[in-house]
Amino acid sequence: MAATQVLTLAEAEAIATAALAANRTSATNASQTARALVAAEADGQPGHGLSRVPSYALQARCGKVDGFATPALYRAAPAAIRIDARHGFAYPAIELAIAELSGLARSEGIAIAALRHSHHFGVAGAHVEKLATQGLVALLFGNTPQAMPFWGGKRSALGTNPIAFAAPLPGGRAPLVIDMALSVAARGKIVAAQRAGKLIPADWAVDAAGNPTTDPGAALGGSLAPVGGAKGASLALMVEILAAALTASAFGWEASSMFDDKGGPPDVGQTFLAIDPVALSGGAFEARMEVLIAAMAAETQVRHPGSRRLAARARSDSDGLQIPAALVAEIRALASA
Amino acid sequence: MAATQVLTLAEAEAIATAALAANRTSATNASQTARALVAAEADGQPGHGLSRVPSYALQARCGKVDGFATPALYRAAPAAIRIDARHGFAYPAIELAIAELSGLARSEGIAIAALRHSHHFGVAGAHVEKLATQGLVALLFGNTPQAMPFWGGKRSALGTNPIAFAAPLPGGRAPLVIDMALSVAARGKIVAAQRAGKLIPADWAVDAAGNPTTDPGAALGGSLAPVGGAKGASLALMVEILAAALTASAFGWEASSMFDDKGGPPDVGQTFLAIDPVALSGGAFEARMEVLIAAMAAETQVRHPGSRRLAARARSDSDGLQIPAALVAEIRALASA
Repeated sequence: MAATQVLTLAEAEAIATAALAANRTSATNASQTARALVAAEADGQPGHGLSRVPSYALQARCGKVDGFATPALYRAAPAAIRIDARHGFAYPAIELAIAELSGLARSEGIAIAALRHSHHFGVAGAHVEKLATQGLVALLFGNTPQAMPFWGGKRSALGTNPIAFAAPLPGGRAPLVIDMALSVAARGKIVAAQRAGKLIPADWAVDAAGNPTTDPGAALGGSLAPVGGAKGASLALMVEILAAALTASAFGWEASSMFDDKGGPPDVGQTFLAIDPVALSGGAFEARMEVLIAAMAAETQVRHPGSRRLAARARSDSDGLQIPAALVAEIRALASA
Repeated sequence: MAATQVLTLAEAEAIATAALAANRTSATNASQTARALVAAEADGQPGHGLSRVPSYALQARCGKVDGFATPALYRAAPAAIRIDARHGFAYPAIELAIAELSGLARSEGIAIAALRHSHHFGVAGAHVEKLATQGLVALLFGNTPQAMPFWGGKRSALGTNPIAFAAPLPGGRAPLVIDMALSVAARGKIVAAQRAGKLIPADWAVDAAGNPTTDPGAALGGSLAPVGGAKGASLALMVEILAAALTASAFGWEASSMFDDKGGPPDVGQTFLAIDPVALSGGAFEARMEVLIAAMAAETQVRHPGSRRLAARARSDSDGLQIPAALVAEIRALASA
């Protein structure tokens, strides 16, 4: 176990902001991006947390991400907006989308935002949760660089393409949040198995020839398996259309990596939906959600989606964040680069 | 193999319409419902086809479905409509939704329809396909009577909760249509295995105690397994919220069967979304879809979603429908009841 260091959320945000701002990123973009990374860390998602600071700084430094970009908003139709992230970090564009959707969904009943020229958008569930906290039902579809074949194919084409959903709950409860990538397992888990010298389950990935493999090395040279076989692959194709075709962005097989400084901007897309449940349900939504929550609570073993995230968040608030000491040092060094 | 009879589409529609109209159903509702059932049959989905006529007629006769209901439309907000199917057949309400959404999506950029007091809605993909044929991207979420446990639970609660998606394709091609229930396998396949005296794969269902089973009888007394485990169960929960909570309808565990005359109306719900891809993409959608289709076609083994459906439709158009002779006789008898 590597040595860790405990940081408060404010300390973590300060060093991440400083690291980004010192690497060709505007103060506003650095701050918005750091806040999202720290929130991911606090929610128990270190893969979308501070571990991203070095690769983000690298991409800003070489110009693969434009750290000075200001997202631009276009009104496409009364209930539809387009946001051009201008090859900057995704979080400023997403904050703009959320701010606009929130009012628009309430006046129009539903609203949609198509984000293009975008980048890694971190924890999808965190974004829809913000809309649900404002009383809206929200959906988010994002495409990612190629990781899974089309159904029947052998070459990676589709991204792992997360779907996130959030709905407000009555009684001051935190929103119900669903957030999933459409691969059986995350690539990070395969990397971890490789480091630990362990085999992986046969349903996680296929090798370069398209055959199932338990060897993490062969898996990393191949493709991830879609969750549920043909159904997961179909959903990933749907997300590719919603997040990339609808936003005029790059498909998974066209997008560059969001980890390194190779190639041009990833140019991935995201599509957000926000729905006013009061208008749609004629005011019945809250009472219906009470019934749903009661039914789920009636069986003790039922898992409430997002409960692990809320527990991690509470722990982070009280105890601070456990960050690998080497990562803290690397981030601090980036700030004085 | 039971004896079959070949009917043209027009003949099939005529006998189904007559059977429904003779069983406490208005001529309009009988005709719209028969058309949807025949289209399902033609698309190779007999489980949503003419096999439903006897149970539909039974439900209309006893009043579980109001065959004389006229769906009512309410404008909830500029881009949102509510449709009350008034415990009638779903298809007239869905036709109303499609007609309204089609104009609304074009003027607002996106539009949503929440259908309540609804019933069995057949092939979900067929409905979104109609919107895609008009150049719109469409999504449909519907809940169904209980079939799967909440994740971690043992009792059936959630429906199999189909998700359907359609997107227009350039060059006069039929739309790309994705349509899936969120169970690993359809209940109908388990019934078929039971009749054939065969075992089922261990990942299809659990018995009443919540344990995986290969015995079709035990499976039918238990619950269906969600596709992809926790991820499928989460998606089914999402659909339950979108299709039932948002529409003020009954959840899966509250809904009565859509096959028999027991209990009150099923009262399930459906939620439709229609999106104008030209407005959202700034006109780039069609070119992006050309690129997607070319990438899928570049690998010969890649399966194009919906290709089986289109092949079945073409065969039905040229060769007519193969219907079990006993079913044809039963439908004809219903018409003179």
